[in-house]
Amino acid sequence: MKNFAGTPGTVTGLILRLFQCLFAAASIASMATTKSFFNFTAFSYLIASMGLQVIWSFGLAFLDACALAKKKALHNPGLVSLIVVGDWVTATLSLAAASSSAGITILYFNDLGGCGVGEECQKYQLAVALAFMSWITIGISSLIMFWTLAAD
Amino acid sequence: MKNFAGTPGTVTGLILRLFQCLFAAASIASMATTKSFFNFTAFSYLIASMGLQVIWSFGLAFLDACALAKKKALHNPGLVSLIVVGDWVTATLSLAAASSSAGITILYFNDLGGCGVGEECQKYQLAVALAFMSWITIGISSLIMFWTLAAD
Repeated sequence: MKNFAGTPGTVTGLILRLFQCLFAAASIASMATTKSFFNFTAFSYLIASMGLQVIWSFGLAFLDACALAKKKALHNPGLVSLIVVGDWVTATLSLAAASSSAGITILYFNDLGGCGVGEECQKYQLAVALAFMSWITIGISSLIMFWTLAAD
Repeated sequence: MKNFAGTPGTVTGLILRLFQCLFAAASIASMATTKSFFNFTAFSYLIASMGLQVIWSFGLAFLDACALAKKKALHNPGLVSLIVVGDWVTATLSLAAASSSAGITILYFNDLGGCGVGEECQKYQLAVALAFMSWITIGISSLIMFWTLAAD
């Protein structure tokens, strides 16, 4: 198994995981501080999906940090397979959550001619944008992990 | 390059492509026959994304059929790389389109307490369901293609 940038136990891998965590947590913070998110199934789903993302990415960041501290690369094929499956599942859920929330945000902003609840709307948009950024970073991680596994 | 089920130039690969094409075309048909889809950005995006899916899958189905007729496997690494990138792009666009449309459909059905335009609503739901089925088949193809490329 080759040891290139982004594989588990490298600094790039750790940074990617921390960014996923950060963007997902910021997305939750932005969405959960609005007063009416629970009226929208998609927004509640966004919070659930980003919550899962935070837990998953934080766990893997911790694993990466441990491997870096011990200077030992994590190249157990069984562990890598498990991370690959988890990465793909969370990446798919994040994209679905970000897209469905984006669909509703665009519906309110463009199609129905402006959003009526003022400041809330900016928070919705911010949460969706952060969710997409979280998806981009988890997508990069997933591709690298899948490549690591397949090239083994 | 191994020649397992689903790689380009196999019967399984051809069947997967034909299903992608069929589901995407049915989704367009269901959505485009409603009277008000153009009022929703997400629904218009669904039609555009499914249109791209039909073109892409039909082209690859044609390629598979040619390879089957000539009994020659398509294992040119350059061509496979191109198909992998195209597959991932269309799969991501399909999932995003299906999710954003699903977000709006659920908003109208559950959150706002029932859909007001009768028969139209069933067509929206059908289009979203077909888009998800198209996404599942393109997802399977993408994974197989990526694996083929990486295991090469």
